[in-house]
Amino acid sequence: MQYERIERGYMAYVEKGEKMMSTLTRFCAANDILNAQLSGIGAVKSIEIGAYDTEKKEYVRHVLPDVWELVSCQGNVVLKDGLPFIHAHVTLSDHDLNTKGGHLFEATVAAVGEFFLRREDSTALRELNPDVGLPCMCLEKTFQ
Amino acid sequence: MQYERIERGYMAYVEKGEKMMSTLTRFCAANDILNAQLSGIGAVKSIEIGAYDTEKKEYVRHVLPDVWELVSCQGNVVLKDGLPFIHAHVTLSDHDLNTKGGHLFEATVAAVGEFFLRREDSTALRELNPDVGLPCMCLEKTFQ
Amino acid sequence: MQYERIERGYMAYVEKGEKMMSTLTRFCAANDILNAQLSGIGAVKSIEIGAYDTEKKEYVRHVLPDVWELVSCQGNVVLKDGLPFIHAHVTLSDHDLNTKGGHLFEATVAAVGEFFLRREDSTALRELNPDVGLPCMCLEKTFQ
Repeated sequence: MQYERIERGYMAYVEKGEKMMSTLTRFCAANDILNAQLSGIGAVKSIEIGAYDTEKKEYVRHVLPDVWELVSCQGNVVLKDGLPFIHAHVTLSDHDLNTKGGHLFEATVAAVGEFFLRREDSTALRELNPDVGLPCMCLEKTFQ
Repeated sequence: MQYERIERGYMAYVEKGEKMMSTLTRFCAANDILNAQLSGIGAVKSIEIGAYDTEKKEYVRHVLPDVWELVSCQGNVVLKDGLPFIHAHVTLSDHDLNTKGGHLFEATVAAVGEFFLRREDSTALRELNPDVGLPCMCLEKTFQ
Repeated sequence: MQYERIERGYMAYVEKGEKMMSTLTRFCAANDILNAQLSGIGAVKSIEIGAYDTEKKEYVRHVLPDVWELVSCQGNVVLKDGLPFIHAHVTLSDHDLNTKGGHLFEATVAAVGEFFLRREDSTALRELNPDVGLPCMCLEKTFQ
């Protein structure tokens, strides 16, 4: 992975053959990026992706082995169990412009992976919310 | 909704059962967020979504009652009739990774709604453009 | 196109009938925006879009003549051959909420095109990477 410091964050170029989620997560840990906004585009393969079943409170998982355009990656980095954790959702497209989407577990860069990571000075962290069944954001204030 | 101040904006966690558009719009009004960039991910249900018919100059509307992953929400907050107005487009995905997308009118958070709101110091506002048929952005300068 | 200076960038409203990629690229060149993050929404037509074939090392190209909602546009501006070059991926949707996506070559605004351009102070540039077959980002540092 190549990277460069920009205001409040980093441009990150995850290179061909690298796993984007584990590489970006290790990069966050190594650079004390505890809270951040993530966005990016690229082309990926060997994609582990899914959706959250709100009734069973577990993820449905699929694997897409082939190459797909990464037409949108959006997400955030928030501390979970003391370590930076990336929550990312993606939209993918194939050579016929068909799309798939979901919660991203992992993907290997097939051509390029071009990301922006914006660091936030925040106390945000994730803790298990039994009602949702997921580690949910805990933020400072409440608005009703 | 939970929130936390970050540089030039807010992390916003719209909680299960809350309507994302009305909650975020009320939050903007309460915090004098007149112009902003919005982005986020989550899982939503009871989704009112559509597309703009440029010939009839009206929105086509659909309702998706079930739970969908919110794989992308992008948009902006701009003053309209003196109040902050959110213009947001979304991509959704189901348990089989199928996607739908469009202009978002409203959606209820089904699991989590994780957003970034970046405040802008701008004079932008929306005024009806008869040629387009919509309240369109009016910005300071023109480039040709 | 209308625009307004915001912190670290611009709000850009590409108007009906304007070509979004060439207009934004000319705007970047005219304003010395050499590196930036791009995101936006709108409604477009006459869309040249495709996907990168990683084996043939060339783009597959399609043309969508009709009007589609631009539900997501994400990308970046990086110097290529000394000029700002926009790399953008999009998701589109039709009146039935069906989606398509891919690498965007060009599109004409059919109703509105609402973008945020965030300028970066970066030395990033694109140079041909023979292994990938594309002009790839070259950033200052490496992380492994």
